[in-house]
Amino acid sequence: MSEKKIVLTGDRPTGKLHLGHYVGSLANRVQFQDIHRQFVMIADTQGLTDHADNVQKIRDNILEVALDYLAVGIDPNKTTLFIQSLIPALPELTMYYLNLITWNRLKHNPTIKLEIQQKGYGEEVPAGFMIYPISQAADITAFGAELVPAGDDQLPIIEQTVEIVRKFNRLYKTDVLVEPKIVTSSIGRLPGIDGKAKMSKSLGNAIFLSDSPDQVAKKVKGMYTDPGHLKVEDPGKVEGNPVFTYLDAFGSDKNKIEEMKAHYARGGLGDSVVKKYLLEELLAFLEPIRRKREEFAKDPDLVMSYLFRGSEMANKAANITLKKVREAMGIDYHKMG
Amino acid sequence: MSEKKIVLTGDRPTGKLHLGHYVGSLANRVQFQDIHRQFVMIADTQGLTDHADNVQKIRDNILEVALDYLAVGIDPNKTTLFIQSLIPALPELTMYYLNLITWNRLKHNPTIKLEIQQKGYGEEVPAGFMIYPISQAADITAFGAELVPAGDDQLPIIEQTVEIVRKFNRLYKTDVLVEPKIVTSSIGRLPGIDGKAKMSKSLGNAIFLSDSPDQVAKKVKGMYTDPGHLKVEDPGKVEGNPVFTYLDAFGSDKNKIEEMKAHYARGGLGDSVVKKYLLEELLAFLEPIRRKREEFAKDPDLVMSYLFRGSEMANKAANITLKKVREAMGIDYHKMG
Repeated sequence: MSEKKIVLTGDRPTGKLHLGHYVGSLANRVQFQDIHRQFVMIADTQGLTDHADNVQKIRDNILEVALDYLAVGIDPNKTTLFIQSLIPALPELTMYYLNLITWNRLKHNPTIKLEIQQKGYGEEVPAGFMIYPISQAADITAFGAELVPAGDDQLPIIEQTVEIVRKFNRLYKTDVLVEPKIVTSSIGRLPGIDGKAKMSKSLGNAIFLSDSPDQVAKKVKGMYTDPGHLKVEDPGKVEGNPVFTYLDAFGSDKNKIEEMKAHYARGGLGDSVVKKYLLEELLAFLEPIRRKREEFAKDPDLVMSYLFRGSEMANKAANITLKKVREAMGIDYHKMG
Repeated sequence: MSEKKIVLTGDRPTGKLHLGHYVGSLANRVQFQDIHRQFVMIADTQGLTDHADNVQKIRDNILEVALDYLAVGIDPNKTTLFIQSLIPALPELTMYYLNLITWNRLKHNPTIKLEIQQKGYGEEVPAGFMIYPISQAADITAFGAELVPAGDDQLPIIEQTVEIVRKFNRLYKTDVLVEPKIVTSSIGRLPGIDGKAKMSKSLGNAIFLSDSPDQVAKKVKGMYTDPGHLKVEDPGKVEGNPVFTYLDAFGSDKNKIEEMKAHYARGGLGDSVVKKYLLEELLAFLEPIRRKREEFAKDPDLVMSYLFRGSEMANKAANITLKKVREAMGIDYHKMG
């Protein structure tokens, strides 16, 4: 008998979700909601830290991300789906945690350092972006999350949360905050259609859950394969070939896939044949997702009502933690006088 | 007919208030509450930015500061007295404003730089302390404050708020945020009993509003005067002599004070005589304040109920601003779907 744990994950609403999200997190969430007590957060506040001048993008993608969630089978009756900015306890906790961490420590967070470099911010990084790891500590602890499914690159953020939890509990002689553990996906990362290590909307190498069959066909046709596999009769490389990685992830007939791999490796199997098969399999995988997505997209009010209801539930949970935090700190003034 | 303006001031609850506070701000507030719409904030959240490890001090001084307010005549029926941490809109606004300001800009705030130096923090400054000017921008704008009475040293903080207001209104094509103006006290700063430029609890040179007559007598007896005035018959310096500065601030008989100044300047008036007179005048000034303070101190529940009631009113005002801010930014999701 496995114990039910509290899980928190989420996405910044900065674009539609793609197959990489499915493999890296969405598939897990669909399983987790039956095993654990799962909170899934649409992290608009975090998205704003580097989109203050493009709020429309954040706003639009709240609905898009929610549609993707519902389409893959995240069930609002099993998972608490909520919008980050609708939980006032989160910024308040952030303020208290910011007092436990030095400026210097913030500056040396490896994830932040890398992201600042990637975004070309330098010293002109928005202050809100700089402190987002502390805001994440608030997200995680507000719900008492024990498990945080995330990529390896997020490990320093989770470590930062653990540091805050320990410091808070030690300083205020309490155990109200729970130490989270990161859960990295077992399947790992899906490469882009260009063969790059990571499928990413910003790299333009993604197949979105909401892509039409025509869009998927076009993307699969243009996919990177083994650049040394020039003629059909040449032996081809299977390892690191995203066409086969995708087949492993989304194909239904494992035996057929193994046969194709062997055939491809010894030569005689053309890329176009493999791609044609991949396209069939991908379309079969995506068809029910796309149909469900289109169905929900007809009723955005209903979708938003799921998010609002989830946000109310999340609010209750976060407020309970906030109350305990204030008591532990000694700022529960209603007991004064 | 002068127009009623919105005023925000307050104090960090890190100690009892003293005569310097009276001259620099409390006297003004007692007048402002009849002319303006005044909010007075007990800034516990801000106090926590450098007292995370001594919350008891913040907690205890909320009541002490409130007693000082009531004792000098700040009237909870005229002034909205509230506790900063009971207004959840403030941290939320802080989060949004942090995205409009760069890390670099925060670092170069002159007030913060000086305070970091004074406190000996160096790079180990708590992150919360570093961002408190943004938190102050939230305090000021949440209530639409047009006037912010504060010391000259706070000018860079008000300038920071103006910068945020302009950036927000420009970026989100709105006028919801109001530009504040600083109001520096007309009387200015009261020197310490040691003759140092500023009376301050941390310098240990303060006469508190709550001091007993014995404590006041002891402090006045030990006051710094003109160090060149060795014998009674010597001419003494009046300017920069705190005994006379205090008489100017708290004495009731302006003619008598002018006579004494002239006598002291030409010689023949001993320090002990001046101090005896100052003590009489100070005790006469402090007596009704102390009596009122003792009266309120008997009913801390009542005092806290004023703060809670004020916090509820402040909450309503801040939530109206927050709603407008979210609309202006485009994160008013309840209109979506």
